[in-house]
Amino acid sequence: MSTDQSGDPGRSPLCLELDLAIDPAETVQLLEGFVANEVTRTGLGRVVVGLSGGLDSAVAAYLAVGALGAGAVLGVLMPYRTSSSDSILDAEQVVGALGILAEKIDISAMVDGFSNTVGEVGAHRLGNVMARARMTVLYDRSAEHRALVLGTSNKTELLLGYGTLHGDLASAVNPLGDLYKTQVRQLADHLDIPETIRRKPPSADLRPGQTDETELGMTYRDADRILAMLVDGRCSRDTIVKAGFDTELVDRIAATVQRTQFKRRPPVIAKVSTRSIGWDFRYPRDWGS
Amino acid sequence: MSTDQSGDPGRSPLCLELDLAIDPAETVQLLEGFVANEVTRTGLGRVVVGLSGGLDSAVAAYLAVGALGAGAVLGVLMPYRTSSSDSILDAEQVVGALGILAEKIDISAMVDGFSNTVGEVGAHRLGNVMARARMTVLYDRSAEHRALVLGTSNKTELLLGYGTLHGDLASAVNPLGDLYKTQVRQLADHLDIPETIRRKPPSADLRPGQTDETELGMTYRDADRILAMLVDGRCSRDTIVKAGFDTELVDRIAATVQRTQFKRRPPVIAKVSTRSIGWDFRYPRDWGS
Repeated sequence: MSTDQSGDPGRSPLCLELDLAIDPAETVQLLEGFVANEVTRTGLGRVVVGLSGGLDSAVAAYLAVGALGAGAVLGVLMPYRTSSSDSILDAEQVVGALGILAEKIDISAMVDGFSNTVGEVGAHRLGNVMARARMTVLYDRSAEHRALVLGTSNKTELLLGYGTLHGDLASAVNPLGDLYKTQVRQLADHLDIPETIRRKPPSADLRPGQTDETELGMTYRDADRILAMLVDGRCSRDTIVKAGFDTELVDRIAATVQRTQFKRRPPVIAKVSTRSIGWDFRYPRDWGS
Repeated sequence: MSTDQSGDPGRSPLCLELDLAIDPAETVQLLEGFVANEVTRTGLGRVVVGLSGGLDSAVAAYLAVGALGAGAVLGVLMPYRTSSSDSILDAEQVVGALGILAEKIDISAMVDGFSNTVGEVGAHRLGNVMARARMTVLYDRSAEHRALVLGTSNKTELLLGYGTLHGDLASAVNPLGDLYKTQVRQLADHLDIPETIRRKPPSADLRPGQTDETELGMTYRDADRILAMLVDGRCSRDTIVKAGFDTELVDRIAATVQRTQFKRRPPVIAKVSTRSIGWDFRYPRDWGS
C-alpha cells in the first residue's frame, strides 16, 4: 500500500502489478448494464451493429442482446465486392445464434462511385473510404430504425489509432472501448461465441490474407501488455524495457499512442469566448438548461 | 464587479451583460495564430477546406490563408447533381480572391451508389449521406496532400446540433467553433469577403430554396442572443424570458442544446479499467510516454 516513489524515479509501485485477466461473468454483467443504461436513457431503446464476421463486433452484439433482448438489436452486414465470403458466413452465424434481425447492404456501389470520381488512391486510403461508406450506411440504418450505433472498437485499437476516424471508430455507445483485445477474447470464450470466429486471426478484411498482427508489426499479446503498463500502469519506458520488452517496440507503441491522440478526441476549437465547446462547455448528455 | 447572487435566484449578475459584438481585427489575429499553431505543431503545415459557397467556409479559408499563406491551403468544391450553380460560382469566387489551388469533386456517383443500394430515404437522411460523402472525399484529399481538414462549423450550429455528425461537423481543427453566426458575419465584413456571399441567406443547399432560418424556425439573431445567455451567461430560462424573448423559443433552444450534446463529444465508452479513454485518459495531443 506504499505510495513511495523514491527508488527508481521512473517506476510507479503499481506499474508492474497489472493483470490482463478479467472476471468474464462480472465484466459481462457490468457491460450489459452499461449498454442498457446508455441506450434506454436516450429514449430509443434499440441499437444497430455492423457485423464484420470478426470477434469484436460479435462480442458487442452478444452484449447488446444480453442488455436489450434480441428484438432490440439489428445486425448490418456490409460486404464490399472483395470481402471474404468467410466473413459473411461468420457474420451470419452470429445473426443465427442470437436470433436477431439483420440486413445485408453491399457498399461496392458507393465505394466504386468514389473510385470512379477521384481515381486510384491505393489500398490504405481505399480502406478508409470503405470504412466511411459503412459508417454512412450504419448511421442511416440507425435513423431508419430509431436506434443507436453500437461501437465495436477495443482499447488496443483505440490506443494504437488502428481504425478509421469517422469510419469504424464512429459510434454512439461503445461497450468494448476499455477492454484490450486479449480481454475481449476472454469475454468471447465466456459468451461461447461460435468457435470459427474465436479461432481465426483478427483482420480488417480489406484485402485477402491481411491480418492485424502482420499489419501492426506486433502481436496483440505484446501490444496489450505494453499498453497496459504505459497507460494503465503509468510505467516509464525504461521500466517496461527492464521488464523484458523490446526497446524498439516499446518506443514505437508509445509514439503511436501519442501520434494518434487526434483520433480519440473531437475537433480542436479555437477558444475566444467565456464558455467554449470542448473546453469549458462539455457537459454530459443530461445537461439541463 | 459584485458576484452577489442573492437577488433573483435564477439570475447571474453577468447573465444580461453579454455583447455579441467582437473586435474583428483582434479576433482575426487570434484565430490566425490558432490555425498557424495547431497546424504547424502536427508537422503537416497545410489544410484542406471544403468550400460550399457559403459564408462560414469562406471565412475559414480566409483565416487559413492569413495563417499559413495561399500555398498551404487547398479548397475542395464538392457539388451534388442538384447543388445550386450559384453555390459553385460563389465558391470559385473565394478560390479566385485568395489565389489558392482548388479541386472540384462531384459526389453524385457516391450518393447515387448509396441510393441505388439502400433505396429512397427521404431528403433529410439523404442530406446526411451527402455530408458524409463530402467528409469522405475531404479526408481522402487531406491524406493525398498531407494536410489537416479545416473545420467550418460555427458555435450556433454546434450548439443547436445543426449539422451532420461525421459529416460537415468532422474536422481536425476548427477556427469558427467558438463564434456565433452573427459574429462570423462580423469577421466576414472585416475580411471583405465577396459581397454576394455575405448577402445571401445561409443555406445547407440540400434542396432548392432551403434556408437555415426557415429550417431552424428561428433567426440567427434570436438564436445567438438566447444561446449566449444560456451557455455563456448561464442565465436561467426565466431570466431570458423576462428579458423579452419568447418562452416557447427559449425552451426549444435549451432542449435542442441538451438533445444534441451527443454530436459534440466522442462515443461513450464503458469504463472498466483504471485508466479509460474519454474518462481519465484524455490527454492533449502532446501526451508524452
